[in-house]
Amino acid sequence: MPEFLTLLPPDEAREKLFLHLPMPKPATKLIDVAASLGRVTAEDVRAPHPLPAFRRSTVDGFAVRAKDTYGASDSLPAYLALAGEVPMGDAPKSALGPGQCMIIHTGGMLPEGADAVVMLEYTQTTTVGAGSSRPKDEIEILRSVAEGENVIAIGEDVAQGQVVQARGSLMRPAEIGGLMALGITQLRVSKKVQVGLISSGDEVIPPEETPRPGQVRDINSHTLAALVTKAGGEPVLYGIVGDTFEALQKLAAGALAECDVVVITAGSSASTRDMTADVIDTLGEPGVLVHGINTRPGKPTILGVCDGKAVIGLPGNPVSALVNGYLFVQPLVEKLLGANPRPRATVQATLTVNLPSQAGREDWWPVKLIENQQSKIGNFSAEPIFGKSNLIFTLAAADGLLRIPPDATGLSAGEQVEVVLL
Amino acid sequence: MPEFLTLLPPDEAREKLFLHLPMPKPATKLIDVAASLGRVTAEDVRAPHPLPAFRRSTVDGFAVRAKDTYGASDSLPAYLALAGEVPMGDAPKSALGPGQCMIIHTGGMLPEGADAVVMLEYTQTTTVGAGSSRPKDEIEILRSVAEGENVIAIGEDVAQGQVVQARGSLMRPAEIGGLMALGITQLRVSKKVQVGLISSGDEVIPPEETPRPGQVRDINSHTLAALVTKAGGEPVLYGIVGDTFEALQKLAAGALAECDVVVITAGSSASTRDMTADVIDTLGEPGVLVHGINTRPGKPTILGVCDGKAVIGLPGNPVSALVNGYLFVQPLVEKLLGANPRPRATVQATLTVNLPSQAGREDWWPVKLIENQQSKIGNFSAEPIFGKSNLIFTLAAADGLLRIPPDATGLSAGEQVEVVLL
Repeated sequence: MPEFLTLLPPDEAREKLFLHLPMPKPATKLIDVAASLGRVTAEDVRAPHPLPAFRRSTVDGFAVRAKDTYGASDSLPAYLALAGEVPMGDAPKSALGPGQCMIIHTGGMLPEGADAVVMLEYTQTTTVGAGSSRPKDEIEILRSVAEGENVIAIGEDVAQGQVVQARGSLMRPAEIGGLMALGITQLRVSKKVQVGLISSGDEVIPPEETPRPGQVRDINSHTLAALVTKAGGEPVLYGIVGDTFEALQKLAAGALAECDVVVITAGSSASTRDMTADVIDTLGEPGVLVHGINTRPGKPTILGVCDGKAVIGLPGNPVSALVNGYLFVQPLVEKLLGANPRPRATVQATLTVNLPSQAGREDWWPVKLIENQQSKIGNFSAEPIFGKSNLIFTLAAADGLLRIPPDATGLSAGEQVEVVLL
Repeated sequence: MPEFLTLLPPDEAREKLFLHLPMPKPATKLIDVAASLGRVTAEDVRAPHPLPAFRRSTVDGFAVRAKDTYGASDSLPAYLALAGEVPMGDAPKSALGPGQCMIIHTGGMLPEGADAVVMLEYTQTTTVGAGSSRPKDEIEILRSVAEGENVIAIGEDVAQGQVVQARGSLMRPAEIGGLMALGITQLRVSKKVQVGLISSGDEVIPPEETPRPGQVRDINSHTLAALVTKAGGEPVLYGIVGDTFEALQKLAAGALAECDVVVITAGSSASTRDMTADVIDTLGEPGVLVHGINTRPGKPTILGVCDGKAVIGLPGNPVSALVNGYLFVQPLVEKLLGANPRPRATVQATLTVNLPSQAGREDWWPVKLIENQQSKIGNFSAEPIFGKSNLIFTLAAADGLLRIPPDATGLSAGEQVEVVLL
């Protein structure tokens, strides 16, 4: 077994990797905003014009001059002359004079001269009785409105020239809508980070083949490919290589030339894990930075930088490989995309049993989340899944991963815990 | 303004919609497991063979018969004859006899006769001194092992015939790996739910056009298309229709014939919202089920079922439309995909200010999450974004939505709250 002289906690190991990684501006690509969901913006986007571009009503009612309504009430209405209706999708046909009002719909454009809108509920159309002196086209205003009331001012959503989309932000439905509102239908985003994936091990065969006794199918290329896709990267599968230094070295060097990152999942024995480290050291300077991480699963994880590109060696054990993929490959892809950090969403739950842990080590336990009956939404129990750590179906059965921090010697039943969804 | 006689809370409104919706088995499609990330399985998948298919060592060491090691210790080792090495990726060349041991690597196949593995650390290769009577190929075993120790039994991960993937489960990296391990490279998933999207309003124009005074660009088709995509559906954009009953009716009827769901975002005025309800009533039985929801934003939301398909009318206000898309369209798509419910991940945060709310109404506030300095990871403040509710960039600026439940009259500064990430 190799000696892990300096077992760094995962957070420090990740920091060390990032520190040694030159972070050039990511390569970029112009794409349609309509197809930009989940992409990361590569430049600041500014508003080409104010939004809204004209003063809009937020209610159905009457456009007025606010001062014409001052003092108006149920018992003492203001009477305004009806000067027409603002058509939807068009400018009002005329300006609003003193003592006048105009029918306006939600989203309609305020006429010149108007500075507020009175809601329909607070108005009344005058009933013209026989012999009444009041003209038929007069509206009773039952509430006074302040200047600007029920109106969105020009530029109130965004001003012209304002940064509406900072570089590094994630395109979500709201961002897509915002850019569309400004007529921005194309956008420069970071190119997907190319992650080369290599599985090594004399015992490993492709999933479509039938294993002979002693052989197993390749899991890691496929779990990591999915993880890379989820993180916004593009997996490039280099297949399976046997346990010889020369073969692994050649394949890894080729992958590194073509990709932004290379991830090697080692064969499962200690000797092949050491071989991975030796190979990484040949691929460029400085080579291996971290060999061994104080975490379970995943102790034998290797982090390296070779001539400016990250190379990661993950354990062959499929559970370790995937959990450490979440810990290292996913944040690396996000970093290389230039994505601004986002809060990580978790599920709060009550732990059902005591979980022991070793002080100094960070543990990640697969857990099932069980919704507590007769309780409000969002109240879950976290039930750890026990079993040997190399069974892939313990992860497939899990809803998420529970972290036991390095400074804890375990967690107690009944404790509130945060579970990261898988 | 229309009267909302029965304003249902969102949860009850959603339940009412689902109750009236026939839920046939979703249409299915056979796809590659490698491309199945985020899809929902349409059938139970069973293991065609046990996993592992042979007994595997979980450590580097020596395969033994456990009883040959009983009582072994540092001071009184057991001596076992070395009977060769298990090759990786192949069956052992011979069975293990009594008193023998065999070199085995992590993941290697146990030879017949062996029932446990002693870790390398607890063994020693006998140094054969001059004149020693001990043979050169003898191994000192310094710890006893129990039967099955450091061995994964056949079927310990999954037994043959076991359901490894229940119908309705989401394909995540772990699921993809699990199926690959079993040689299952194709999978039947639910077809993407087709959601027809219609924007109505005389003032609405496509984003690529330049608005004249009084016109605005279509936001809702594009925010909702992104939301539908995220939820696992397939948006079908039917474009923009003016505020006439006949035009909307015709377009909606056509969309409903082609899609599984139709979502109409109404023009912004009250009269066009009522028109949407009238149109939905013509599309099939029973028509409008819910007209008006006790929530902010989103009060004028309409839920209907027309001859077995859901039709949803959302307010034209882009913030209302998107928030109510999250409340109704997303759960509907997941339901129609046959997806099993999953816990919703949130971010725990401390509210920075008092937020008022009306009892009985469910409010959703856009909030920014600010990571508190000098505190451990995961400690956030939630800062509500104020501003008129129809400004799309209030949502683009928000990290998430904060829910004020119907039974609360507000939330207080300093309260712990759950924020749903946008």
